[in-house]
Amino acid sequence: MAFGWIDEQAELRGRAGLVRTLRPRPADSPLLDLASNDYLGLTRHPEVTEGAARAARTWGGGATGSRLVTGTTELHAELERELADFCGFEAALVFSSGYAANLAAVSALAPHGSLIVSDAGNHASLIDGCRLARGTTQVAAHAEPDAVRKALRTHEGPAVAVSDTVFSVDGDAAPLAALARVCREHGAGLVVDDAHGLGVLGEGGRGAPYAAGLAGADDVVATVTLSKSLGSQGGAVLGPARVIDHLVNAARTFIFDTGLAPAAAGAALSALRLLRREPERAARSRAVAGELHARLTAAGLEAVRPDAAVVSVRAPSPEAAVRWAADCRTAGVVVGCFRPPSVPDGISRLRLTARADLTEEQIAHAVRVIDETRP
Amino acid sequence: MAFGWIDEQAELRGRAGLVRTLRPRPADSPLLDLASNDYLGLTRHPEVTEGAARAARTWGGGATGSRLVTGTTELHAELERELADFCGFEAALVFSSGYAANLAAVSALAPHGSLIVSDAGNHASLIDGCRLARGTTQVAAHAEPDAVRKALRTHEGPAVAVSDTVFSVDGDAAPLAALARVCREHGAGLVVDDAHGLGVLGEGGRGAPYAAGLAGADDVVATVTLSKSLGSQGGAVLGPARVIDHLVNAARTFIFDTGLAPAAAGAALSALRLLRREPERAARSRAVAGELHARLTAAGLEAVRPDAAVVSVRAPSPEAAVRWAADCRTAGVVVGCFRPPSVPDGISRLRLTARADLTEEQIAHAVRVIDETRP
Repeated sequence: MAFGWIDEQAELRGRAGLVRTLRPRPADSPLLDLASNDYLGLTRHPEVTEGAARAARTWGGGATGSRLVTGTTELHAELERELADFCGFEAALVFSSGYAANLAAVSALAPHGSLIVSDAGNHASLIDGCRLARGTTQVAAHAEPDAVRKALRTHEGPAVAVSDTVFSVDGDAAPLAALARVCREHGAGLVVDDAHGLGVLGEGGRGAPYAAGLAGADDVVATVTLSKSLGSQGGAVLGPARVIDHLVNAARTFIFDTGLAPAAAGAALSALRLLRREPERAARSRAVAGELHARLTAAGLEAVRPDAAVVSVRAPSPEAAVRWAADCRTAGVVVGCFRPPSVPDGISRLRLTARADLTEEQIAHAVRVIDETRP
Repeated sequence: MAFGWIDEQAELRGRAGLVRTLRPRPADSPLLDLASNDYLGLTRHPEVTEGAARAARTWGGGATGSRLVTGTTELHAELERELADFCGFEAALVFSSGYAANLAAVSALAPHGSLIVSDAGNHASLIDGCRLARGTTQVAAHAEPDAVRKALRTHEGPAVAVSDTVFSVDGDAAPLAALARVCREHGAGLVVDDAHGLGVLGEGGRGAPYAAGLAGADDVVATVTLSKSLGSQGGAVLGPARVIDHLVNAARTFIFDTGLAPAAAGAALSALRLLRREPERAARSRAVAGELHARLTAAGLEAVRPDAAVVSVRAPSPEAAVRWAADCRTAGVVVGCFRPPSVPDGISRLRLTARADLTEEQIAHAVRVIDETRP
């Protein structure tokens, strides 16, 4: 029977305790959210939601076509100019998601005969970008510039190194300056995904490439998402104008996808302007992360020192992690739970988001609940 | 130098006259739009834009996380129920784009050792789905069930045939009933992309699978987009509940992507309800397509008889097509212009959208302009 093999896989997942289900949330949940990627707490900000509403009314519910046909509005162009300017790059190109932006950046910048050196901890969208690219991929050990150097040495011709700037699972930062040095030694490009850096790292949240002095360099391309710190949906590629022009002409997830909905572009633009006006939000998210880490560690829990706004707490086993997260939820605190096969190293953990708008009481409550429910 | 090869490619494109550039449009354009995919003319409908605005205010500017973590709202669940019900399928799963839905459906339903038989005219997102899948792909001649049969005969084990229901470039329909018969002979699944069928084909716009009597079958999976007839952004996979559960557990563009923005879900839901209330919109788009085809043909132009709401008009060369489209625009009518490398058969053409809300005067004006500017 067609799709018969699906039932076998479902049974295996069930026996392994790895079944994922959806849990629709209400509009006004009494639970304390430490699981989303709403780092700056902007997604419910009235300026952001009004930005979405205004854009929908002005421009319509959708972009109506590919960005190359009818799907580019003046709103998209405005967002691209302001994003590029804020992050310190020459140009930007907005996509319908960060996933699509990563597929585009990696696949369009790694032609036939080229080498991609991809960090072992990279996000699924970068990995899928490698798989769609015509170039050959070598996976390098996590956050080790020497491993990248070794891989680049084996290759003649175009090459790129690809890395998250902040890794989603553990919240650790990539050694960007060292990676850029290694790439330059070999004339290779550097493509970095700043999904978890934008809005959190760098002066006023301008992102990890800006903080590392790499923004605007002619051999550096960054991707960002509009769905985390900017509280909306979508993604963008930032880089030299010639690279952006190339993507307009060559990136399949740009050419053959409907443009980002005006409401999402409007929400992201409002959030960006809010962040420019209130740059302290970025520092606040880092401070909350430091606070969470210090208190959890003081309570004897094993937490990774956060480089951005993600705090990762080790759990002894997948089952314990699932139970721990469920107990937190029962006590009113929603935390992320990462376990195989979503973690590259097989280690299960709770993942906490250090939202910039968490109050002292909320931080204290969260730490108390996580401590009291520990396995 | 890093990315140096990009300049060579840009020069080649320039010499071939194939440079693509973006043309941001204003909110209120005086031009007549026959280039978008807004088949039912709903994207600017007040109910649709208010649906977007209300959802942003109620739920926030973004979904805040993966659908598996915090990104599933009750609004997403509502949209999934109503979409599945309208199209006649057991269950639905909403994605951030139709592109992401197609990557998911193809890659998650073609495991290692399986065969994918893919129509030669399929959309880029289905092709990329094949490239991401662990199964092996065989490309079958366009719209030829016998070619699919021949490919399926060569294979033991799980198999799927993959096809658009309406092909974007020429607007021709796939032979769905025959494809389903061939798949059933071989125990293969059928995955069809109804991006250009939903809202146009079938009773009240319920789509091509519904029209072919295939909706709800246990061996048929359909993908749809929310960004065409429904005037919003996003995509969905429709199918048996067990297939949808499988995608929740296995589809990378579902698991590792931020959920669809509430505004986009709200706009699509409003459009869907509007279409249920006013089912004549679907028939009207088909009637407009027939009208455009009849008049263009009567004027001596070579147009493909439309199966849905896309009317394709042949141009003698890529250069002539580009000039023709530019002349139409100068005369106030925006038409699509497809040319290599975006067309599988190398034939350049104008592509017209038969919007359900076009008036008799607009149809007459469009035909007059296209005729008068012919190469």
